[in-house]
This record gives sequence, structure tokens and C-alpha cells, in this order.
Amino acid sequence: MKELANSILNDINNGQYPKIVLPDRSSKNVLFLPDEGKFKVGDLKSTKDSRNIRHAKNFHQFMWTAYYVYRLLKNNRTSSLRDLYYSSKGYGVNFKDQDESDRIVTDLEAYLGVPRESFGIFPEERSAIFGDLTIEYTVHGFEGKSVNLSSNPDGFSIGPSITNSKFIKTNAQIVIAIESGGMFSRLIEESIWKSMNAILIHLGGQAPRSARRIIKRLNEELGLKCFIFTDADPWGMHIANVIVYGSRNSAHIPDLVTPDAKWIGVYASDIEDYQLPAMNLTDADLKKIDELLLDPRYKEEPWKSQLLEFKKIRKRAEQQALSRWGLSFVSKYLKEKIENEF
Amino acid sequence: MKELANSILNDINNGQYPKIVLPDRSSKNVLFLPDEGKFKVGDLKSTKDSRNIRHAKNFHQFMWTAYYVYRLLKNNRTSSLRDLYYSSKGYGVNFKDQDESDRIVTDLEAYLGVPRESFGIFPEERSAIFGDLTIEYTVHGFEGKSVNLSSNPDGFSIGPSITNSKFIKTNAQIVIAIESGGMFSRLIEESIWKSMNAILIHLGGQAPRSARRIIKRLNEELGLKCFIFTDADPWGMHIANVIVYGSRNSAHIPDLVTPDAKWIGVYASDIEDYQLPAMNLTDADLKKIDELLLDPRYKEEPWKSQLLEFKKIRKRAEQQALSRWGLSFVSKYLKEKIENEF
Repeated sequence: MKELANSILNDINNGQYPKIVLPDRSSKNVLFLPDEGKFKVGDLKSTKDSRNIRHAKNFHQFMWTAYYVYRLLKNNRTSSLRDLYYSSKGYGVNFKDQDESDRIVTDLEAYLGVPRESFGIFPEERSAIFGDLTIEYTVHGFEGKSVNLSSNPDGFSIGPSITNSKFIKTNAQIVIAIESGGMFSRLIEESIWKSMNAILIHLGGQAPRSARRIIKRLNEELGLKCFIFTDADPWGMHIANVIVYGSRNSAHIPDLVTPDAKWIGVYASDIEDYQLPAMNLTDADLKKIDELLLDPRYKEEPWKSQLLEFKKIRKRAEQQALSRWGLSFVSKYLKEKIENEF
Repeated sequence: MKELANSILNDINNGQYPKIVLPDRSSKNVLFLPDEGKFKVGDLKSTKDSRNIRHAKNFHQFMWTAYYVYRLLKNNRTSSLRDLYYSSKGYGVNFKDQDESDRIVTDLEAYLGVPRESFGIFPEERSAIFGDLTIEYTVHGFEGKSVNLSSNPDGFSIGPSITNSKFIKTNAQIVIAIESGGMFSRLIEESIWKSMNAILIHLGGQAPRSARRIIKRLNEELGLKCFIFTDADPWGMHIANVIVYGSRNSAHIPDLVTPDAKWIGVYASDIEDYQLPAMNLTDADLKKIDELLLDPRYKEEPWKSQLLEFKKIRKRAEQQALSRWGLSFVSKYLKEKIENEF
């Protein structure tokens, strides 16, 4: 942030129009690296030059956003993307809509090379966490306080405070990330978090970035192996895939990808193997499968063969379909699946 | 539950086809009582008679559902509506889809006269709570453990454990129920929960029943006054209205209504009074307003005049629009609004 301010000041002191140079995020500069199994932003740069009348508004928006973030950091505060958008109105900064201010925040991420969560900007979507992990808060008003995340059996919402907390102590050995809230509650209630020594994460559909960041941190800082447990359909698979390989939209933020994480089901092949109650795939599901078959992230196993299996059986099942064998059956299922991976 | 089982047994022992008699929930038997400000189920009864071939399937579904719930209660367990649906498959009980099993659970609520949450059946939707309230858990594996709900600055998800917990101790004086997650986080971060001695509840849009139940309990058991803070649009108003007056669908459960709760904004009139950034109402918004103008729950103030004001100005604003005056401005706004109510 200081470098940004200094470079602007230098330009002005040298009698030049100030400009900002940042990585180009357009699709021609975002590449999938099959060997590393992730997206990367290339070397092309884009410039916001205040001399150019077409850039002036964008330059202004970027500088105001940087100023807003600077104040958050200085005061150890956080803000939602929406608050940032509305705050701009008080300064006469002109964003057409929140999409436009969200895009400028993404530009700032690309410029700084870190996710917006680390400079205090959070989206509204929420996920949850539960398990034997003691954390220490770093946010305003709670500095130094600690809590063990197994103390509330309904789970803890993953917001700014947990995302940016210090991990102090855990006896857990694995992480299980779960698509649906019902299954998350089930694994708590069946004491599976205890019997499997697992930290549980409720993704709530497509994983919010804060959940992806926590998974990455648990994997990297504590060395915990991560498993992803979703519905048996192309959308569930893709939730898992984005945790493992990342997404084009967040190619500029390496901190969100956990290449080491494993998708453990529910697989298309499990529908027959476990005789699960299943529904027919819709046209939209089948279209999604064809789209994913062309995606470079789906060239490896189990991704490719499971896509082909879905295409063959034309069925989908929810993770809670395992309850047809009783509420506790999921425990047996997970043990079989996870032992296979060790 | 025992009465149900006994009445079925008696019918059989007396050589009769067993039957179940429960309150009729069809619209002709659900009335709005303007004086009491809530819906009520009338005196008509509906019968599921196993002698009638058209009732036999329904009778069977109801009895299995009662059996499922009996086992939950006996083992101090909970289940999602979805788990219940899938569990039925393991017993060869035939529900066409989850809508059908959800309806039978509602029948059981009407029969027993208590919400499904009190017999361990929970939906997936989640809300959150934060504030100085010490609770003691009663759920399986956590009996007797207690936690103070101000210990995690991201808030606690409201699930089965919190909904059914005992309230042990609080220094809070009011409850503020908030539509959006961003605003919920803002009130925590600005320490407004402390300066206003408030327990905060994040509704996450239309209030889930567990959130409505917690509000009711805080009001009734602890005598806390409740305030509801939503977006300035007909949908936000209706979120507040359902907390105060209840809904037709849950007319058979009095435990979800808090007649004493107050909607404090954001009002249509606040858009001008506070010069908030506003958007135009859509056709769908205007249609909703006309619909609500005919609704018996909107005959009193502030409901009626605010509907008319929306219709006049044809504008809507989000609660976070208050951030145009700075991130802390909401504190001033809430103090003005709430002091008016004392």
C-alpha cells in the first residue's frame, strides 16, 4: 500500500500524470497449468493511466478503494463488499453498481497479490466450522481471546474473525468439508468428528472464499489432510474441484487452492454400489457434464471417469441419500472412503 | 405421542379400523384474528381413516413419521427434514417427494400442537446469534456444557443445539433482529451490541423458524424487548411482519409469534429523511406492495403508512445504505429509532 502511494507521489513530483500498473486479469492472460494443477496469471500488465480520459474514472475509483482499505487496516476493522459500495456514495465516488466496486476490489487484490480477506474486505456469504481446534482472535475488541471450535454443537460461522485468527492447538488429524448443512449437523450429532478426529467445515454449496482459505490454512499450517464430501451430481463435483484446482476468477490469488485435498464422494459409481435413492439428471445437469468434460481440471482421476459414469447412468443423488441405511450409516461410508486414501 | 399410540391400539382392540383426528389446516379453517394480531387454526377437524382406501397411504405415512420422531426423542437425537425423507426409503415407506414428507411433519405438528423443532426435526436454513447470553446445551453429547454467545465475534449458527438450549444468564436489555449478514457483522464490529446492551440475531432474509422461536423465547423467558431492522422494501417489511404477526403456514404453532416485537426500519420515509442511496422499485416490488395492502396484518401503523409511502416514492434502499454516512452511522440511527420506542 505504501509503495502504491509512493509511486503516485513520485509521478506527481516528477510532473507526470500518475498511473497504476497491475497484472492483467483478462482471459488471454489467465492460464491453466496442468503440471501444477492450477490457474496462474501470466506476465502481461494492464495500466490505469490518469492521463488517459478513458482511464480517469477507473483510476479515481482504484485510489479511493485503496484509501478505504488503508483506513480499515489502520483501524483494524473489516467491511463487507456492500458496505464499501455504499460508503463510496458518501465520498462522491461514482460506482455504477456493486459489480463495479467489486471489480475494483479484485483489481486491488491483483495489485497487492493477496486475497481481499487479508485486507479486511469480506463478502456476505457464510460457511461454518466445528471441531477440536483452539483459535485466538486478532480482530478489534477480541484480541488475545481464544475459543475451542468444538464448544458449540451448531458450529461456528466462518466470518472475518475466524478467517484471520491464529491456530493455537488441535488434536484433529483430518478435515472434512461438507456440501450440505444437514450432513454437517449429522456428523456432529453422530460424534463422527470425535471418532474420526475430524474438523468439519460446512461449505453451503459452492465454497465461499473464506472457507477455501481456512481449508488451505488447516492443510498448510497444521498439515491436516482434507477430504471433500458432496452430493453426487456435476455441481457437487465442481464444488470439490474448485477447492482442489481453484477457479479462473481467483487465478490471481494462490492462497485459496488446496491441491492436496481429495474428493471422496458421493461418486456417481456410489449410486449403484450403495443402492442410493436417485433422481434423473436434468438437461441442465447433462449440459454441465459436457462442459466439464472439456475443462482442463477434469483430465485426471477420479474426475474424468466419474463424469463419464454420470453421463452413462444419467442419475444424481444427494449426500443425505445415505440415510436410507439409517442415520448412522454415513459413518461407515466415510470410514471406507477415507481409509482408501491413506 | 403416547396418546396417539394408545388411541390406535384401542381402535384395533375394539375391532375398528384405526384413525387419526387432527386440526384441519386448510385455508377455510385458518383465520386471522385482528384483535389478537395473529393467525389461529379454527375448530374444524380432519381425519385420516385407515378404513378409507384414499386415506390409507396418508395414514401409513403419518404413523411411520410418528415412529421416526418417537425414536429421535427416545435417543435425544435430531434429524433434518431431508434426512427424514431419505430414511423413509429404508423402511419402504412411500413418499412421492420431500414436499410430501414435509407436509406429514406439519400434520404431526398440528396433531401435537408444538413446532417440529421441539421434537427434533430441523430444516437446513440457518440464522445466527451473538451477544451476552450464557446458554446451557441439552443435546446429545453436550448436556450440561455452557457457553456465552459473545465469545465468537463471527456469531453462532442457530441450529438444534441453540434453539433447544436453556437460557442461563444475560446482561442484555434488548434484542435486535437484522436482515443482512453484513449489517449483523457491522453491529458486532462497531461494538453496538455492547453500547446498546443488545443480543443480535442475523435472520438471513425471511426468518427461519428457529430464529423466530429464539426471538419469542428471549422476549417471553427473559422479558427482552425485540426490534427488527430490515432493508427498506416490501420484502424487508414482510420479514419483520411475519415475526410480529406470524404466517398462515404456521398458524398451528403459536410459539413462533412475538406480538411485542417492533419493526424499527429502514422505513420508506427514512429514504428521504436520511438521504439514503436508493434504487427504483421493480414491478415485482410494486405488485408485492399492492398484495400487502390487502393483507389483514398491514392494517395498523407503521405498516400501512409505510406501504403507502413506498407506493408514493417508488424507491427502495438497503439497510447498508446507511454506510454512506460512514461505517459507524448505523449506531446513531439505531439509537434514535429505539429511543422512540421507549
